[in-house]
Amino acid sequence: MTSLRPVFKWETPTFLFLDLFVTSIIEVNEKAQSLSTQITILNGWVNEFTAWNPDDFCGITSCSIKKDMVWTPDISITESIKTEFATMENQYVQLLNEGAVVTSNTFAVTTACKMNLHQFPFDVQRCTITLQSPIHSSKELVLSPISDASFLTLSSKKAFQTQGEWELLSINTSKANATTQGEPQDQLIYKITMKRRPLLYVINFLMPVFYFLILDLASFFIDSTGGEKLGFKVTLLLSISVLLLLLQDMLPSTASDIPLIGVYCVVIFTLMGISVLETILVNFLIAKGNRTISVKPMENSPTLSDAVKDMKSCPDSETDRHEERLHALDLLKAAATHTNHQERKCLSWTRVAAIVDVIFNFLYVTTVIVFLIMLFKAWFP
Amino acid sequence: MTSLRPVFKWETPTFLFLDLFVTSIIEVNEKAQSLSTQITILNGWVNEFTAWNPDDFCGITSCSIKKDMVWTPDISITESIKTEFATMENQYVQLLNEGAVVTSNTFAVTTACKMNLHQFPFDVQRCTITLQSPIHSSKELVLSPISDASFLTLSSKKAFQTQGEWELLSINTSKANATTQGEPQDQLIYKITMKRRPLLYVINFLMPVFYFLILDLASFFIDSTGGEKLGFKVTLLLSISVLLLLLQDMLPSTASDIPLIGVYCVVIFTLMGISVLETILVNFLIAKGNRTISVKPMENSPTLSDAVKDMKSCPDSETDRHEERLHALDLLKAAATHTNHQERKCLSWTRVAAIVDVIFNFLYVTTVIVFLIMLFKAWFP
Amino acid sequence: MTSLRPVFKWETPTFLFLDLFVTSIIEVNEKAQSLSTQITILNGWVNEFTAWNPDDFCGITSCSIKKDMVWTPDISITESIKTEFATMENQYVQLLNEGAVVTSNTFAVTTACKMNLHQFPFDVQRCTITLQSPIHSSKELVLSPISDASFLTLSSKKAFQTQGEWELLSINTSKANATTQGEPQDQLIYKITMKRRPLLYVINFLMPVFYFLILDLASFFIDSTGGEKLGFKVTLLLSISVLLLLLQDMLPSTASDIPLIGVYCVVIFTLMGISVLETILVNFLIAKGNRTISVKPMENSPTLSDAVKDMKSCPDSETDRHEERLHALDLLKAAATHTNHQERKCLSWTRVAAIVDVIFNFLYVTTVIVFLIMLFKAWFP
Amino acid sequence: MTSLRPVFKWETPTFLFLDLFVTSIIEVNEKAQSLSTQITILNGWVNEFTAWNPDDFCGITSCSIKKDMVWTPDISITESIKTEFATMENQYVQLLNEGAVVTSNTFAVTTACKMNLHQFPFDVQRCTITLQSPIHSSKELVLSPISDASFLTLSSKKAFQTQGEWELLSINTSKANATTQGEPQDQLIYKITMKRRPLLYVINFLMPVFYFLILDLASFFIDSTGGEKLGFKVTLLLSISVLLLLLQDMLPSTASDIPLIGVYCVVIFTLMGISVLETILVNFLIAKGNRTISVKPMENSPTLSDAVKDMKSCPDSETDRHEERLHALDLLKAAATHTNHQERKCLSWTRVAAIVDVIFNFLYVTTVIVFLIMLFKAWFP
Amino acid sequence: MTSLRPVFKWETPTFLFLDLFVTSIIEVNEKAQSLSTQITILNGWVNEFTAWNPDDFCGITSCSIKKDMVWTPDISITESIKTEFATMENQYVQLLNEGAVVTSNTFAVTTACKMNLHQFPFDVQRCTITLQSPIHSSKELVLSPISDASFLTLSSKKAFQTQGEWELLSINTSKANATTQGEPQDQLIYKITMKRRPLLYVINFLMPVFYFLILDLASFFIDSTGGEKLGFKVTLLLSISVLLLLLQDMLPSTASDIPLIGVYCVVIFTLMGISVLETILVNFLIAKGNRTISVKPMENSPTLSDAVKDMKSCPDSETDRHEERLHALDLLKAAATHTNHQERKCLSWTRVAAIVDVIFNFLYVTTVIVFLIMLFKAWFP
Repeated sequence: MTSLRPVFKWETPTFLFLDLFVTSIIEVNEKAQSLSTQITILNGWVNEFTAWNPDDFCGITSCSIKKDMVWTPDISITESIKTEFATMENQYVQLLNEGAVVTSNTFAVTTACKMNLHQFPFDVQRCTITLQSPIHSSKELVLSPISDASFLTLSSKKAFQTQGEWELLSINTSKANATTQGEPQDQLIYKITMKRRPLLYVINFLMPVFYFLILDLASFFIDSTGGEKLGFKVTLLLSISVLLLLLQDMLPSTASDIPLIGVYCVVIFTLMGISVLETILVNFLIAKGNRTISVKPMENSPTLSDAVKDMKSCPDSETDRHEERLHALDLLKAAATHTNHQERKCLSWTRVAAIVDVIFNFLYVTTVIVFLIMLFKAWFP
Repeated sequence: MTSLRPVFKWETPTFLFLDLFVTSIIEVNEKAQSLSTQITILNGWVNEFTAWNPDDFCGITSCSIKKDMVWTPDISITESIKTEFATMENQYVQLLNEGAVVTSNTFAVTTACKMNLHQFPFDVQRCTITLQSPIHSSKELVLSPISDASFLTLSSKKAFQTQGEWELLSINTSKANATTQGEPQDQLIYKITMKRRPLLYVINFLMPVFYFLILDLASFFIDSTGGEKLGFKVTLLLSISVLLLLLQDMLPSTASDIPLIGVYCVVIFTLMGISVLETILVNFLIAKGNRTISVKPMENSPTLSDAVKDMKSCPDSETDRHEERLHALDLLKAAATHTNHQERKCLSWTRVAAIVDVIFNFLYVTTVIVFLIMLFKAWFP
Repeated sequence: MTSLRPVFKWETPTFLFLDLFVTSIIEVNEKAQSLSTQITILNGWVNEFTAWNPDDFCGITSCSIKKDMVWTPDISITESIKTEFATMENQYVQLLNEGAVVTSNTFAVTTACKMNLHQFPFDVQRCTITLQSPIHSSKELVLSPISDASFLTLSSKKAFQTQGEWELLSINTSKANATTQGEPQDQLIYKITMKRRPLLYVINFLMPVFYFLILDLASFFIDSTGGEKLGFKVTLLLSISVLLLLLQDMLPSTASDIPLIGVYCVVIFTLMGISVLETILVNFLIAKGNRTISVKPMENSPTLSDAVKDMKSCPDSETDRHEERLHALDLLKAAATHTNHQERKCLSWTRVAAIVDVIFNFLYVTTVIVFLIMLFKAWFP
Repeated sequence: MTSLRPVFKWETPTFLFLDLFVTSIIEVNEKAQSLSTQITILNGWVNEFTAWNPDDFCGITSCSIKKDMVWTPDISITESIKTEFATMENQYVQLLNEGAVVTSNTFAVTTACKMNLHQFPFDVQRCTITLQSPIHSSKELVLSPISDASFLTLSSKKAFQTQGEWELLSINTSKANATTQGEPQDQLIYKITMKRRPLLYVINFLMPVFYFLILDLASFFIDSTGGEKLGFKVTLLLSISVLLLLLQDMLPSTASDIPLIGVYCVVIFTLMGISVLETILVNFLIAKGNRTISVKPMENSPTLSDAVKDMKSCPDSETDRHEERLHALDLLKAAATHTNHQERKCLSWTRVAAIVDVIFNFLYVTTVIVFLIMLFKAWFP
Repeated sequence: MTSLRPVFKWETPTFLFLDLFVTSIIEVNEKAQSLSTQITILNGWVNEFTAWNPDDFCGITSCSIKKDMVWTPDISITESIKTEFATMENQYVQLLNEGAVVTSNTFAVTTACKMNLHQFPFDVQRCTITLQSPIHSSKELVLSPISDASFLTLSSKKAFQTQGEWELLSINTSKANATTQGEPQDQLIYKITMKRRPLLYVINFLMPVFYFLILDLASFFIDSTGGEKLGFKVTLLLSISVLLLLLQDMLPSTASDIPLIGVYCVVIFTLMGISVLETILVNFLIAKGNRTISVKPMENSPTLSDAVKDMKSCPDSETDRHEERLHALDLLKAAATHTNHQERKCLSWTRVAAIVDVIFNFLYVTTVIVFLIMLFKAWFP
């Protein structure tokens, strides 16, 4: 008895009315692309065998009996990876005297959901829960929603029990047809739209990376000559590496549609890397200039030691005292002039370094601003 | 027999008496907004069919039979995501001769719970466990609590088996009505109030971040000229980045009600970032001053080499010896004066730097103190 | 038949003999305050209906039948959060001709356990497993242990299959009474005492932190003038921050009874933080001294440039040559004397710095030694 | 009835037609070498007892009954570690009038899969799902695929519900024979080919490591004399250590076929380590040179103090004034010459250092380029 | 019927033949000391009631029926913590006409396993799976292996489906007796020997730590005077701290048998710590030397300022000019000599430092080599 559809004529389809409420969003797993929710499915169907006249039965209009005493429809969730009763399984169904059977069950379901993480963490996800009979064709089982989308959304929001990362925006319901095994089958598709609350990601990832970028930009004003600029910049790079450990936990690896947060991270990392390279170049130019000053005079030019040497070579008389001194001074002067010349040469390198530094930093700041504006537009279109 | 409510007249509602004890708080998952507890539900109901006169049955006043031999009410937990028997399922119920059936079950339940994490980790959470029949209306099944809130709290605290992060404060019980499927239904709502023990979070997160802030404030006294101040400050920033890894594990991402710990973290990170920027600025001003001294004399002002040059240009006689020397001294003096002048100019930059440094640090300390006082007030109102 | 207690007279209690062996400690979760063990429960009870005379049945003294053919007692574990059959469920029980029924089951149970983590990782935990009937009073079901504690301990140790973090010390057994639902109930309480093997925590956490403390103490001998001392100390602080990530995973957050490892961590972190502050102070004093030397002469005192200026102002005659020179020398000398004076003043700052440094380090070392001795005593009383 | 194969003659094999669709790839666990998928198995078999003539039964050509009313084949997945119904178990099967029984079930299966991670993260994995009866030989049960591979691939791709790390490339189907327990058994082998989307691994691991390598190469241009080069390089090494934490989570430990990403990491780490060693060597050579200059003159060569000493030793007459001065100058010159000589000696060390540096860096760059080209070829053959 | 052993005479034991194949090693959890495997158990036993003469039944020699229609032996795995059917439960058994019943099941079992991690990650583990009846004594149920160890090993290796961290070396089988509840029971013990593939641990942990040790050894050649040596060494120590985070995840905490990898880590960490202490000592000695030079002359010895002072005190005549100058030179010389003397004193400190440095580093290198050789021998005996 409980095995056969409760219709008197086999051509009569059984009408099944359904409502699906989303009462909790338990987990959204971006890596597994799955959504865990607590849903309540309320369903009622026509059972032609259990209709009675209340007048014949002391006015009883409804009664509850064990579920396995009547035929129950087989409704499954197409996207489901795991469906479990959220609480103890409801053993009873309610019979109404008009021949309807009503039951309500709460499930904890994990469903597959195609998530587009392009705008993570400022994203809105749309997941569908499709109710469908695995066996019965639409000739045998006709599915209809009881309530409309706005009522479902309102009721779900009212009953919503969690206040986590996701905000439920709306639940839409639509009817569709699928064809499996040759026969058309009725489908009820519930589309759950939900919005991520992005704050923690902003605090923990976007903000620190942005701050490190600002500090890297500001490092333009650090004196290039000491080693601290380089140390400062490489420590910023290390800090971003530490934050990369967080990114790995947040997102799955995808290809076609690169998440903007990845772009953000890559571009800033690259810019900061290039900026370290530039610092090395500028330091190299400055060092080259300095080396020109300090090395060359030792080898080729008249130096203090030469001057002293000359001083000694012209001694003896009181009159020579003057020339000697003058020669020495001459040499000193020459050395000084030469040094001056070298300094000018060195200054040219230093100037090149300074010009490179200024131009690079101008380009750097421009790139960063343009990039951030574009990213902002992509993130909040 | 076991399928129908055990009443002689169908209008008679079945009275169900319930008690719920929380014997362990197993896990509180802030990310999933769920609470895992071990609860014991003691329930007894009136079964009109199983009343007997003990005198007729050798004075037997109670006996235990298998659960599936009598009708059992269907009670579910509305917030439940997962309900499992904590130990092996109790197969027996106890019949009392007055017609009551008594049973007791221990469950491990995971329930959804709206948590407000604004004051994390000094927060108190209130989670509800709502007992309700999924099918029976209040005409059929009337729920009543056996014990009052204070007894439940006392008993639960006495039987409490864990000593973890959460301290059970109280259990309140209240009766409510819900209307699903048109008919009013009885609800018993147990509100569990519990307090987080914050110590580990203070030791592991609040304290280190605070210490790093203190060190950052103290870095005002580090000499600006060397590179160590900048290196010191950026290492502090790196240390806070490492601690950010912890924050990610602690909290879910929320939007409306920002957790104070997030504010604490963001504000301190921002202040320390600004303080690094200020250090760069001050160093830049000092370096600008120094550059004014070391660069300009080389190019424009009479220098030692000029002096030497002049010395040579006035030789020949013993009498000239004096003038030559005087001229040289004059030049030297001029150079010295010029340097002095430059120094004064440079000193002005250095002074600006010093003033900026002092003002900034005054503002910094003030902001930190004000911020910490406000945060303290928000945390412990 | 299987639903009623197997006694001829209803007043006769059923005697249930139990033994509980702990064969594996699978996991101890300090955060959830739970203990996962593999236990084997051997139980036998008197079934008055299944006694037979072996002589009447070809000398058969025992036979095994399916479990659901006889009444089985309902024994649950009070602390259990999850009880599962560790292996496939044993479907058979053994009947002995004297009327006893014997069965043995292996469970994987997770029980709540009040853990005191004060002495972590050198702690000994005592967890109880309480066997009790959820329904039957002690008038109906009398529980007795088969073996004594020493046999249970020996057998469990012999059958122990794991060699992980926990060493089983002993199993104690005691009988107790609980009163639920008005009637007294028999309880068998098994207290499992186990000792943590602390090695990994020593290697991974205590030792590195201790080493970093030693290095921080040794940093007293690093020259204060360069920036390296500060860099060294802040890197040590960063290293400890990295190790704090480990602490978060090890322990739950508790309040009343602070774990000593937390005290260890907090005190060392605080000491090292204060020591960084002291270094900054000492460096500041030294820098102040140095600044006194290098800044003041430029502004107020007779300097070389003044000397040169004076040199020029008294020229003309050969005789004046002497005075001029003398005056210049005088000024030079004055400048030198002044510098000398300044140096003395600066030296006083430097001396203050040195004295502060020595006193602080003496106090630091003393505090550390006293603290470590006290901690050692608290850890190994 | 439901226990025996539905054939009239026992020699007749039962024909079982199967289709397997992969509708989600939930998780690929490289460490456990397992693949979690959501699969739908559609199967139909000949039941000779349930054929009927539609004309005799009002034209009914199909009807659905409870599954346990007919014999069902026992099909298991050989590689399965865990098989669960993805949604509520389908309780019904459909009978067709020709004597066929059709059913469809969706499973969440975790299967073992031999993964070759040599080319991780640019790898393509091929996992097989083998359907086989655990008991029935091919004389009793004959398995055949319903659809061909291209249809399965198309349908699966169309129904694919996830968009995570893995892209489904194709599903191949083949028939095989296995011999267990002496009798040949039919097998249907579905080979699932899927491609990893590598982006996140590139962004989070390959790219930062590569950038650090580039920075290490660029550090050639950092001046060797200061300490910053060494600090820079060791910070890069530290950054790579941080990234090694990520590698541990990504891959299992394997031996025969080393993953290229491991080679990438090891070689770069080794190269950078060697490059640090080289920097230490070069700095040592330069320091050796410098020490030659600054130490030797103090001990062995005529120095300024000697010169001054000599100056004093030849006083008294006006005529001696010259010689004294000349001698002093001579000594000064000698000292200068000696210094010059020392400088040349030191310069030779410095030159050796410079040559070593250039050669090493040339070899370094060459090795890196060759290595990266070879790695690229191995990764994208 | 299905409840009683299928023997005509109750004294006849039932012979049970078993084979156990290990088809996947899913997970080895060192912390929980558990092993998760996919095993296939093939078992056949004598059922005296189901033997038939094929000639009487149209030559049928075997047939498959539902499992619950015949008696099945109760075989459990003693070490099992969790036993689950790896795929859908096999509902059928095969009856052979000789009276044998054959069935085959695939399980996913997690068994406790005493692991010795002394040689981790170059370890070989031996885990046992013991099959035993929980109730039946060896008088009732006799267990015998079907195949020998070499066949089991070969078959398991052939069917092996994973290629992860563990390589299956062999499966041994042996028969044993256990005495529980007074009666001897048959046991079949399968010992699974498996070898860890150590590569990832070498790449991720052993190698980086070794490299950091080499760099620490090489730091001997870094010039002690600058601060970079200390910074370099403390950064290496920080890098090892980061790697310690990995160690925590790899191993459980054990006491008796310290894992060599722990020894490796501790010894290297200690050596590097001591080496940092030595560097501080050497730097302190050098600094002490330098301070002797720079501080003492300021206070006690004749200095330039004294020289200048003396210069002024002897003016007036042209003839005095000489003496004055000579005196000044004398003082200058004396100052120089004193400085020279101080330098010699300072040099002695520097020499002590150099000697300490060389001796320490010699001992360091020796210790490291000896330690590594001993460790190598212990790891690969």
